Amino acid sequence: MNRTERKLAAVPDWTPGETAFKYFKARPMLKRVRLARPVRLESGREFGPVTVAYETYGRLSPAKDNVILIPHALTGDSHCASHGPDDPEEGWWEPLVGPGRVFDTERFFIICSNVLGGCQGTTGPASYSPSGKPYGMRFPVITIRDMVRVQRMLLEHLGIDRVLLVAGGSMGGMQTLQWAVDYPEMVGAAIAIATPARASAQSIAYNEVGRQAIMLDPYWRGGDYYRYSEGPEAGLGVARMIGMITYQSDASMARKFGRRLMEGPRADIYDLATQFEVESYLHYQGRKLAKRFDANTYIYLTRALDLFDLGAGYGSLEAALERVQCPVMVYGMSSDILYPTYQQRELVDALTRVGKRAEYVELETDYGHDGFLIEFHRMEPDLRAFVDRVAEGR
Amino acid sequence: MNRTERKLAAVPDWTPGETAFKYFKARPMLKRVRLARPVRLESGREFGPVTVAYETYGRLSPAKDNVILIPHALTGDSHCASHGPDDPEEGWWEPLVGPGRVFDTERFFIICSNVLGGCQGTTGPASYSPSGKPYGMRFPVITIRDMVRVQRMLLEHLGIDRVLLVAGGSMGGMQTLQWAVDYPEMVGAAIAIATPARASAQSIAYNEVGRQAIMLDPYWRGGDYYRYSEGPEAGLGVARMIGMITYQSDASMARKFGRRLMEGPRADIYDLATQFEVESYLHYQGRKLAKRFDANTYIYLTRALDLFDLGAGYGSLEAALERVQCPVMVYGMSSDILYPTYQQRELVDALTRVGKRAEYVELETDYGHDGFLIEFHRMEPDLRAFVDRVAEGR
Repeated sequence: MNRTERKLAAVPDWTPGETAFKYFKARPMLKRVRLARPVRLESGREFGPVTVAYETYGRLSPAKDNVILIPHALTGDSHCASHGPDDPEEGWWEPLVGPGRVFDTERFFIICSNVLGGCQGTTGPASYSPSGKPYGMRFPVITIRDMVRVQRMLLEHLGIDRVLLVAGGSMGGMQTLQWAVDYPEMVGAAIAIATPARASAQSIAYNEVGRQAIMLDPYWRGGDYYRYSEGPEAGLGVARMIGMITYQSDASMARKFGRRLMEGPRADIYDLATQFEVESYLHYQGRKLAKRFDANTYIYLTRALDLFDLGAGYGSLEAALERVQCPVMVYGMSSDILYPTYQQRELVDALTRVGKRAEYVELETDYGHDGFLIEFHRMEPDLRAFVDRVAEGR
Repeated sequence: MNRTERKLAAVPDWTPGETAFKYFKARPMLKRVRLARPVRLESGREFGPVTVAYETYGRLSPAKDNVILIPHALTGDSHCASHGPDDPEEGWWEPLVGPGRVFDTERFFIICSNVLGGCQGTTGPASYSPSGKPYGMRFPVITIRDMVRVQRMLLEHLGIDRVLLVAGGSMGGMQTLQWAVDYPEMVGAAIAIATPARASAQSIAYNEVGRQAIMLDPYWRGGDYYRYSEGPEAGLGVARMIGMITYQSDASMARKFGRRLMEGPRADIYDLATQFEVESYLHYQGRKLAKRFDANTYIYLTRALDLFDLGAGYGSLEAALERVQCPVMVYGMSSDILYPTYQQRELVDALTRVGKRAEYVELETDYGHDGFLIEFHRMEPDLRAFVDRVAEGR
């Protein structure tokens, strides 16, 4: 029996008939809701049923006026922070979310949901379709706007008709901006970090290389790999390697790895098996992602990134931004090579041009795009001041 | 019969028992010499026999004092320019090489050879080893220094013991610098364009992603694909896509492609088959390279790029540069993201620090790294002035 033909004996216990993604992690505090209605996608297609997975932090006030929505980035999920003893595993924005932190769980009710198309509980390509099989590449093309629509339906389910603040970085920042444009009456303030107003040709190019790497993997099988024990982990790993380069910077990689070899200065450099530290690091990151993320989700979400263009559907970026009713804080990471800071300045300039309250903070950092997941302490003072102003209604 | 099992019926006519690379192009003016001795590689290994493919332009003066050596970049070959009616196909530095051009074929004798490890006539992974099979991944790891050693043996064969000038860009620039350091008594002047003094972690990272893409291709078969009709063209194509991103710049991609779709503004963006122009362009470039370049050569030459460190073996960069006896002109492309201009300035600063004649010219361009293959007319005045000074012995 070929290793690729070894099918999984049965759908494992932890997939209650909903997902075929084998690394789905049923977190203790994960909540899930099946939306009552199908979602009308930006493409015009009615799509459903849709389940949304989400986590909440803090308590919803009786007036339901203390909600902060935190959309996640490409490979993120609903676990932006730990839940104390109930789920102590740190989340991807841990230092910002918790008691006394910027997004203070003693004051605010924080909602973080897995995006449409995701692989950690919300309906995505690994979910079983009404046909009884996982969607695979039959999943519809989705957009940032569609992710936001699903979040809005989640809020509706929770009886929330307005949020104090939406805050996110990268793909989370795109959702933040889309929220402020599409549902301006529902958003009290927005913080968009390391995000552009539209995806550039270069960022589309990087994503396409990642998708091609996945599709090159023979175990990808046109997206129908779920019933096999081997999936396109290697291809997703290569996609991740490319991504990791774009999330860092030349300077941070030089500092972290330089030209050091894994085997040290006495390594045999004339042996192809000898690795530079940077190579070993990228391989490690590739393997790591492939153990927690679904390759088809990577394809669909990067496509959503590529299609992101805030002005689309409104005629122009300015026309879209005209709709915004809330103050917007825009954060740029000085060494970001994925969404360089001129793109954040362009956004702020456009907001200012149409008379909106926008402020721009550029963080001098050599961490590149990933700065928004690293430079917590340096971002904190500006973020805290903004959040306090928002909470006090100033 | 599986398409991958369809072996080529026989070694085609144009491979005189030397290469298994099916896209080897036997150019009309290509000369080839089998070196009399094996090459002693930097690794200490004796390697041979080695055949070197080269082209020459102009006439060697009786005193053999008008030689210009032009090493090529990663995917280049010996065809840096056309040969008039004898071979009118344009070369990769066409506007710089020819009668009256910067590298004036009426004054100079220009030698351009395919590098060791290459796939266009010089011994490389696709060459038949003494065992009777193509080397594949049994080819030895080679370095920029090894490429230069082979070029030196070619000069020896031609009875040339000194060159007026070595000039090249990118990997050609690395060879140029290595020439000036390893054989200072043989080099009259050096022009190194868009090249670093050592490969950075980031550039190694990009190369490793390319290699992994090739190895991910099931048709790569551990490097032993030559006898099959299907090779790792798709994997090499993905590697090329990554390369092409790093050869350009965010600005040039924005200008050339923006967010335009292949099918125009009425394209169905909700169809995964719809392509952005930048995606289509990258696919085209990937397919194109795969029809003229060998995937194993790509693996070996990118490894040589990664291993490039001018100071290695001399204790430090300064110690290596102390050896240089000629004036060095260094060119940087302002928007180069592969070898950013701080790397060229670092090189020039180090040369200056050890008292060498070095000049730095930075070209303001948004073409990125590829500027050295595009911005001919803007580079020409400085190049011409330098070459004239060199030719006049000033």
